[in-house]
Amino acid sequence: MAAELEIVCIGNELLIGKVVNTNASWIGKKATDLGIKVKRVTVCADDLQEIASVIREALSRKPKFVITTGGLGPTFDDKTLQGISIALQKKWVVNVEAFRMVQNKYVEYVKSRNIETPDMTEPRVKMATFPEGTKPLFNPVGTAPGMQADIENTVLFALPGVPKEMEAIFELSVVPLLRQASENGGFYQKSIYADNIMESILAPLIDKVMQDNCGVYIKSHPKGMENQPHMELHFSILEKNPDRAEALLREAVAQMVQLIRENGGKIYPEKHQTDV
Amino acid sequence: MAAELEIVCIGNELLIGKVVNTNASWIGKKATDLGIKVKRVTVCADDLQEIASVIREALSRKPKFVITTGGLGPTFDDKTLQGISIALQKKWVVNVEAFRMVQNKYVEYVKSRNIETPDMTEPRVKMATFPEGTKPLFNPVGTAPGMQADIENTVLFALPGVPKEMEAIFELSVVPLLRQASENGGFYQKSIYADNIMESILAPLIDKVMQDNCGVYIKSHPKGMENQPHMELHFSILEKNPDRAEALLREAVAQMVQLIRENGGKIYPEKHQTDV
Repeated sequence: MAAELEIVCIGNELLIGKVVNTNASWIGKKATDLGIKVKRVTVCADDLQEIASVIREALSRKPKFVITTGGLGPTFDDKTLQGISIALQKKWVVNVEAFRMVQNKYVEYVKSRNIETPDMTEPRVKMATFPEGTKPLFNPVGTAPGMQADIENTVLFALPGVPKEMEAIFELSVVPLLRQASENGGFYQKSIYADNIMESILAPLIDKVMQDNCGVYIKSHPKGMENQPHMELHFSILEKNPDRAEALLREAVAQMVQLIRENGGKIYPEKHQTDV
Repeated sequence: MAAELEIVCIGNELLIGKVVNTNASWIGKKATDLGIKVKRVTVCADDLQEIASVIREALSRKPKFVITTGGLGPTFDDKTLQGISIALQKKWVVNVEAFRMVQNKYVEYVKSRNIETPDMTEPRVKMATFPEGTKPLFNPVGTAPGMQADIENTVLFALPGVPKEMEAIFELSVVPLLRQASENGGFYQKSIYADNIMESILAPLIDKVMQDNCGVYIKSHPKGMENQPHMELHFSILEKNPDRAEALLREAVAQMVQLIRENGGKIYPEKHQTDV
C-alpha cells in the first residue's frame, strides 16, 4: 500500500478566495508522481486553536506524512509553529539552529544594503521559535526556515506559504523522504479525449474496462455538456515497474477506444480545439 | 457573529494536483462577499467512507452551512450523495422530483439530436438517487441536480464539480439562504502596496494599527523577498454599515501609510510593475 500524505494549508486568504490554493495542487502533483497517495487537503484560518485542531486531526488518522503550508513569517498572523506546539503538547521555544539560520539571513541582507548589523527583533526571533525537539529546514530562497517533526509513525513538515520558498524547501528536504517511503513505486497516467458520447453512456464502459484491467483507475472529466459531450478520460496506475505500467495503461486505453467507437463516439489522442 | 460555512470538495483529481481547486476559491469569495465566514475547506477522494467521514466531521463542528462540490455525475466514482446518505444515516433512494429533472434533461437532449426516447438507464437513475428526505436543486446548465438537506442547525448543499454547473446552482439556490443568514453584514476590503520595508519591520506596525482600529484585520502578503521586499497589505472588515466600513478602512490605511513612510518604506495605492 502506498504511503499516505495529508496536506494542511493555513491562511485566511485561501478561505476568502483571495488566493487560489496552487500550493496544494503543486504538492499533490509532486507527491503523486513520487508514488505517494495524497489522502486529504485541509485549509484553515490563521487561528491558533484551528491550526492545532487541524494538525491533531490529521495526525490522528496516522498518515506517513503531513505537510503544512503558510504561517511561518514574522507577523502576528503567522501562527503555524505555535499551533503545532499546542497540537504536539510541546513547548514553543527558540531553536538555536533556526535562530542562526534567521540571523545569517539578516546579516546577508544588511551587508548588501550597507546598513548596520541587524537586531534580532521579536518578529525575527519568532521565525526561529519552534516546537521543542523539532528540526529547522534550511530555506534557500527566503528567510523563515521550514520545520520537521518526527512523531511516532508520521513525519510532519511545516513549509512557508510563499510558493517559491515552499517549493525550494520541498525539493531540498521533503522529496528525499517521500522517495524513500514510496518504495520505488510510481504514478503513471494517460488521457484520451472523446466527443459525441454522453457520460451516462460512458459510465458502464468505464466500469467494464476497470474490471478487465486490474489496477487501472479511470476517471471521466466532462468538459462540455451532457448533450454536447466532450470528455477527458484519465487513466492512471500506481506501479513499481514502468514497463508493466505502460503496458497495462496501453491495454486499458485500447479496450476503451474500441468500446467508445462501438457506441458512436469519436476519439482524439490529444487535447483539441473544442477542449475547454 | 457571522454565520459559518465549511466547503468540502470531493475528487481525486484535486488531490493528485491534476486540477487546481478553483471551486473552493470561487465559493469562498462569493460567500465572504455576502458576509459569511468561511471556516474550513476539506478536499477528499472519491471514496465512500472518506466522503461520509468528512461530511460527518464537518457537521459535528455545527457550521450554519456546508457546501460540497463534485461527485454528482453518472459514473462509478460519483459517490457524494451515497456518502452523504451514510453520514446522515438515511436511506439512499430514488427521489421522484430529481428523477423527473434528470428525465426531462434527456428528453431535451434526444429531441435536439433526433434520436429515440431516452432510457432511464442505471447511470441516469443514479443522478436522481438521493439521501431520503432531501431536496433536489434544479441544474440550469447541466444534467445532475444539486441537493439540499436541512439538518438541525445546518443546511447542507451538494453541488456538481463542473464549475459552470456549480456556479449556476449556487447563484440560484444557495445565495438566497446565505444572504438571509448574513443579516445584511458585508465584507469590505482594501489593499495597499509597500516597497523597501521588510516584513519583520512591518510586523509591529501591523500590530499597532490593528490595535488602534478595532474590527479591521490586516494581513501582509509578501510578493518579493525579505531583502527586496514588495508587500501587499490587505485590510478587511466584516460590517453591516457600508459607510462605517469605508470610514474604518480609510482610517486604518491612513495610519499604516504614515507608519510605513516613517520607517523608510514607499507606498503604492495600486498594484504596479514589480508585483509578482
